[in-house]
Amino acid sequence: MLTNRKKIHIEWGDCDPAGIVYYPRYFAFFDNCTSALFEAAGLPKHEMLRHYQILGIPMVDTRARFLAPSRFGDDVEVESCITEWRRSSFDVQHRLYRGTQLAVECSETRVWAVLSATAGTIEGRAVPDEVIQKLGGVRANG
Amino acid sequence: MLTNRKKIHIEWGDCDPAGIVYYPRYFAFFDNCTSALFEAAGLPKHEMLRHYQILGIPMVDTRARFLAPSRFGDDVEVESCITEWRRSSFDVQHRLYRGTQLAVECSETRVWAVLSATAGTIEGRAVPDEVIQKLGGVRANG
Amino acid sequence: MLTNRKKIHIEWGDCDPAGIVYYPRYFAFFDNCTSALFEAAGLPKHEMLRHYQILGIPMVDTRARFLAPSRFGDDVEVESCITEWRRSSFDVQHRLYRGTQLAVECSETRVWAVLSATAGTIEGRAVPDEVIQKLGGVRANG
Amino acid sequence: MLTNRKKIHIEWGDCDPAGIVYYPRYFAFFDNCTSALFEAAGLPKHEMLRHYQILGIPMVDTRARFLAPSRFGDDVEVESCITEWRRSSFDVQHRLYRGTQLAVECSETRVWAVLSATAGTIEGRAVPDEVIQKLGGVRANG
Repeated sequence: MLTNRKKIHIEWGDCDPAGIVYYPRYFAFFDNCTSALFEAAGLPKHEMLRHYQILGIPMVDTRARFLAPSRFGDDVEVESCITEWRRSSFDVQHRLYRGTQLAVECSETRVWAVLSATAGTIEGRAVPDEVIQKLGGVRANG
Repeated sequence: MLTNRKKIHIEWGDCDPAGIVYYPRYFAFFDNCTSALFEAAGLPKHEMLRHYQILGIPMVDTRARFLAPSRFGDDVEVESCITEWRRSSFDVQHRLYRGTQLAVECSETRVWAVLSATAGTIEGRAVPDEVIQKLGGVRANG
Repeated sequence: MLTNRKKIHIEWGDCDPAGIVYYPRYFAFFDNCTSALFEAAGLPKHEMLRHYQILGIPMVDTRARFLAPSRFGDDVEVESCITEWRRSSFDVQHRLYRGTQLAVECSETRVWAVLSATAGTIEGRAVPDEVIQKLGGVRANG
Repeated sequence: MLTNRKKIHIEWGDCDPAGIVYYPRYFAFFDNCTSALFEAAGLPKHEMLRHYQILGIPMVDTRARFLAPSRFGDDVEVESCITEWRRSSFDVQHRLYRGTQLAVECSETRVWAVLSATAGTIEGRAVPDEVIQKLGGVRANG
């Protein structure tokens, strides 16, 4: 299972009047970390979307637990991996560390999605085997 | 239990290249909805922070499930209420509707927090009874 | 010349550790105000893009002067109008007021843009006369 | 005069439904680039604020010209320097390049600001000489 680590510098504009990261910004960080994980597997998101003709990998369920605040000027590091592959959806896990301290834990469920040509709706499609292999995973129950 | 409804117009800048709301934006919407809920109870957040000498009501745990996408130009409505009060933390629930369709569900656990003068850390404090009463709630096990 | 006024409530997440609006947020406010101006003229942006088959009205030049800070909890109002129409570009002016105090002034130059089918580039097109008329304007030198 | 270069990867969430960077995001990039410029001079912003007891370096005037769009997946580079120091304010210039192409030009006027203890207002103070020296500059007319 491929694990990627991405460093993030907490900027002035990431923080709120309490001087700590405004929590919706963490979700943007984690979205970028999921992109970086695919890129580390040789699948830069913008090329992956074009190559596999998908609309994206939209979020269907995400949860984050905030264990310790991060502040303006902090350097943090996020460890990301895919924990489960299903037919058309998959789970991603992120752990954000300040030094050795686990500060935020996040889980995501995303779908491999296309734009339905007829209905204009967003629909799941089977994740290609080679995508799963590049990420070092195996499909559950598969 | 006080429930507040807040209308949100989905703007161009809320949406991503797939033409749907970039999901971290929903968390900013929900944060604003929690502020609006307190304001509807006669506790505008900026005055509440000053009056009770708290740093804020930071997030400790939040989860959202995305059932249907919203698009640029949509008008959506969020229904928000507090589902449980504990000593120094509380749970908020948001339901975002596009027309009659439930599109996003979100739960939050927040803490009534002060900045510890000695340690510089963020610490929970007992939520004042009058705050709970204004929101039409009762403390669990209390 | 049509002028639109839009109220904005300054949210917690709009503000930085200095407790004032993080200035890039003003540009998002003004982008929303330009959309609201077109909507007030009977041209909601998402319908306008579809109807006239344009990609958008991207920014080519914008400047803002910040005369007074706005803070978390403030209610401000932005007055917006189009100050000049040219063949394929136009200028928008925004004035943000806190009460009667002018707090931010912003000017924008935008282009009426299509995605060139052959080159994949973004190109200007003549703004339709009826769009200019709906906004109550006349084309310069026209 | 110290010049700093900062690489930026354009993320999915930086882009709008037209597939190009949502322009308010550029201002956040440039704000981060100004921080990076001070850090390159040995003045990390969070330490500089503490050391010199200032509230920040708030923006009073900024202008950006957008010469070419950047897209999701692009790697761009921003070149930043301070072009003029005055008593309590200074000008910053940013040039964002896609490869060798100048894509965005931005100028900023910022103020060295404290929170007035008596009035609660934000006020300019003389920029310390050593700050100007570290950035390799000289004060105009000084």
